[in-house]
Amino acid sequence: MAQKPSIPKGTRDFSPEEMAKRNYIFDTIKSVYRTYGFMEIETPAMENLSTLTGKYGDEGDKLLFRILNSGDSLKDFKREELLTIDANEFAARACDRGLRYDLTVPFARYVVQHRNEITFPFRRFQIQPVWRADRPQKGRYREFFQCDADVIGSDSLLHEVELTRIIDTVFHKLGVSVTIHLNNRKLLTAIGETLGIENIIDLTVAIDKLDKIGWDGVQGELLSKGIAQEAIDRLYPILTFVGSNEEKLEKMGELFEGSVVGKKGIEELSYIFDMLRLSPLHNKVLLDLSLARGLDYYTGTIFEVKANDVQIGSITGGGRYDNLTGVFGLDGVSGVGISFGADRIFDVLNQLELYPKEATTGTRLMFVNFGDRETRYILPLLSEIREAGISAELYPEDAKLKKQMSYANALSIPYVAFVGAEEVDSKTITLKDMESGEQMALTLEQLIQRLL
Amino acid sequence: MAQKPSIPKGTRDFSPEEMAKRNYIFDTIKSVYRTYGFMEIETPAMENLSTLTGKYGDEGDKLLFRILNSGDSLKDFKREELLTIDANEFAARACDRGLRYDLTVPFARYVVQHRNEITFPFRRFQIQPVWRADRPQKGRYREFFQCDADVIGSDSLLHEVELTRIIDTVFHKLGVSVTIHLNNRKLLTAIGETLGIENIIDLTVAIDKLDKIGWDGVQGELLSKGIAQEAIDRLYPILTFVGSNEEKLEKMGELFEGSVVGKKGIEELSYIFDMLRLSPLHNKVLLDLSLARGLDYYTGTIFEVKANDVQIGSITGGGRYDNLTGVFGLDGVSGVGISFGADRIFDVLNQLELYPKEATTGTRLMFVNFGDRETRYILPLLSEIREAGISAELYPEDAKLKKQMSYANALSIPYVAFVGAEEVDSKTITLKDMESGEQMALTLEQLIQRLL
Repeated sequence: MAQKPSIPKGTRDFSPEEMAKRNYIFDTIKSVYRTYGFMEIETPAMENLSTLTGKYGDEGDKLLFRILNSGDSLKDFKREELLTIDANEFAARACDRGLRYDLTVPFARYVVQHRNEITFPFRRFQIQPVWRADRPQKGRYREFFQCDADVIGSDSLLHEVELTRIIDTVFHKLGVSVTIHLNNRKLLTAIGETLGIENIIDLTVAIDKLDKIGWDGVQGELLSKGIAQEAIDRLYPILTFVGSNEEKLEKMGELFEGSVVGKKGIEELSYIFDMLRLSPLHNKVLLDLSLARGLDYYTGTIFEVKANDVQIGSITGGGRYDNLTGVFGLDGVSGVGISFGADRIFDVLNQLELYPKEATTGTRLMFVNFGDRETRYILPLLSEIREAGISAELYPEDAKLKKQMSYANALSIPYVAFVGAEEVDSKTITLKDMESGEQMALTLEQLIQRLL
Repeated sequence: MAQKPSIPKGTRDFSPEEMAKRNYIFDTIKSVYRTYGFMEIETPAMENLSTLTGKYGDEGDKLLFRILNSGDSLKDFKREELLTIDANEFAARACDRGLRYDLTVPFARYVVQHRNEITFPFRRFQIQPVWRADRPQKGRYREFFQCDADVIGSDSLLHEVELTRIIDTVFHKLGVSVTIHLNNRKLLTAIGETLGIENIIDLTVAIDKLDKIGWDGVQGELLSKGIAQEAIDRLYPILTFVGSNEEKLEKMGELFEGSVVGKKGIEELSYIFDMLRLSPLHNKVLLDLSLARGLDYYTGTIFEVKANDVQIGSITGGGRYDNLTGVFGLDGVSGVGISFGADRIFDVLNQLELYPKEATTGTRLMFVNFGDRETRYILPLLSEIREAGISAELYPEDAKLKKQMSYANALSIPYVAFVGAEEVDSKTITLKDMESGEQMALTLEQLIQRLL
């Protein structure tokens, strides 16, 4: 019954090398989140479908992975029904649970369910896989990881300031030069108001594509939505205004003098830029009036991050929302959050070769195995070396030296130790630096010092 | 459309405090695995059902969570079939994928699928959730974590020695006193031979329950399987033999003088105990002839670990197997592995209150918010404090002092900093140690030094 094994389309195995690189990224993000007071939570892979459905639009509902009820999954159906039942209705009744589609809805559910145990404002981060039954393609997977941080239960704009600093610090630590794009949904609303465009969603969805389809494409899309050419013509200079952040804010100030929501948006952005100037940043923060972000639940600041040296889409995004938990019966909880795109960041670091060597090496030292007598001598040494925190191993068999050395090479083990009869007698270890080829006779203490 | 949110039965949310405790356990296990040269991999949550079914027996197949095929999940059925189709057959055809049930089968699948990229012997560890549609009860979840380490592609008994040391080191680091029980399946086979018991599985399944149901229970079970009273009477003194590990090995040596497999088992255990004596262990390692372990794929050494100070079942287990990957078409790959029971270890540490304080605190320092002027002064200080690796935050709003302090208390933040007009003028920070109540005026550098 042998079978050629494979994994489901759109999913991945992570090899030791890939895991080391991913851990490097995740650990960097986690450590920064933690220094900003964010606390980690995890939620189950499965949620009740009642929690998930209706939260991501019809398109999203179709992309949910549903789990067939255990036992007799047909027992709740009259068999005759099955002759005519609609496939969607069948799925809805045959499945009570689904795999989480993102971390935002489970987080909202978490907050409502545990509201009596939570101290607000609540800064949480969460790094877990999510699943979508999307058509797999290059860079798009059916299982992928999200790295979210949100603060909820506070309207303070200081959170926007801090989230911007978190983004700045993470990419600085990873060695990636980025531009952090900021905008405010209120400005987009004001633009709509001023230009007489009623459907702000149509406006933002079209603007969001400026990068991809250019002004001509955006113009076409706006026209097709019934927006007047005159309004579109007035939009163009706003979106493409060139100047410093301060100049842009000033320009918008003139434009929206009569708009309450516009003035509020400018006030918020001005405060954020003002606070960001108090201490230096590593990356550029740009007021980008063309930044819209598709998701319609954002109500204030929105964020997006682009790598300066790699052609790839947004590698981090987020924004402020007013009512994340309303759908679960808890109103008035506002928040702001960001999400690092782990898979794209992984690709960026690969492309720029930014993984530090230490991050991706496993075993640091391998002892060659010369047989039983030497093994008995080596085992206690190994214990001490490991006790000092150094990853070390003894080749498990008295195999040919060539075989042992090619194992060390294949695993890129940087140091190999030889303990033969001579070394046992003189109580030394011969250490070989695999990169330089240099060999030296060391005591155990000297060896530990050298490898630390 | 508000709904009272909940999560599926048998699944759990992990709060920040629980996450911190779990991370402490996982990080301890990972760091020890790494010092022994084990490398991390991850596999997808979903596997093809063809990979999973038939590997865990009929009972296991029933406990698999199956994922309904996306799109029209009924499209591969003639509607009339559905009038009479068996529920199991329906599930088999309506679902191509399932959630992984353990880490062992996905690992075997991984090894076969990637055998050309892997350097053997391959030491891998893997810490991921698994899912079983078991009836939830105290301590038994439908989503739970496994922490496996296996070495495959090597018959060397040194791996058994090292895995024993890994277990010893992990529990020593966690502060849990344990007894590591070792046995060898070959001895159980020899016992069966000597006593004329043909069905070794019946024998091991019954022996495995000695702890739970006592000798009378085991005896009853053996009798019911048709094993002769005379054989059972001869079994009793073997299982309950009192003496040191060496005395047990000697006794077994006499008993199995004529048994090839028995002698092999004794030889293996003798070698392992011999090698373990070369340097000190923190915990007791016990040759336990009554240790059987239910799983029938073990062929050599078997491990089981019990906490000395808490009444709970086995908290770690494992063993050597001869042919993990045969079912996927790759024969002759033997290996040995262990698995830490994270949920039970979590309970043990809770019960013994063994979590170090540092492991479970988040933010170390909170600045009280006195308003805009002070905020502008504090933000650059915060950047420097975080740069030094200290988790710190500023209360995000100029709220009443009482509210800010109760937030700090609720989060067990150990230090609170006050920067009012006076401190701004004198360029100091007033730091309050929340445990001792002590207050002091410090410069930024002094504060950082104190908190590091």
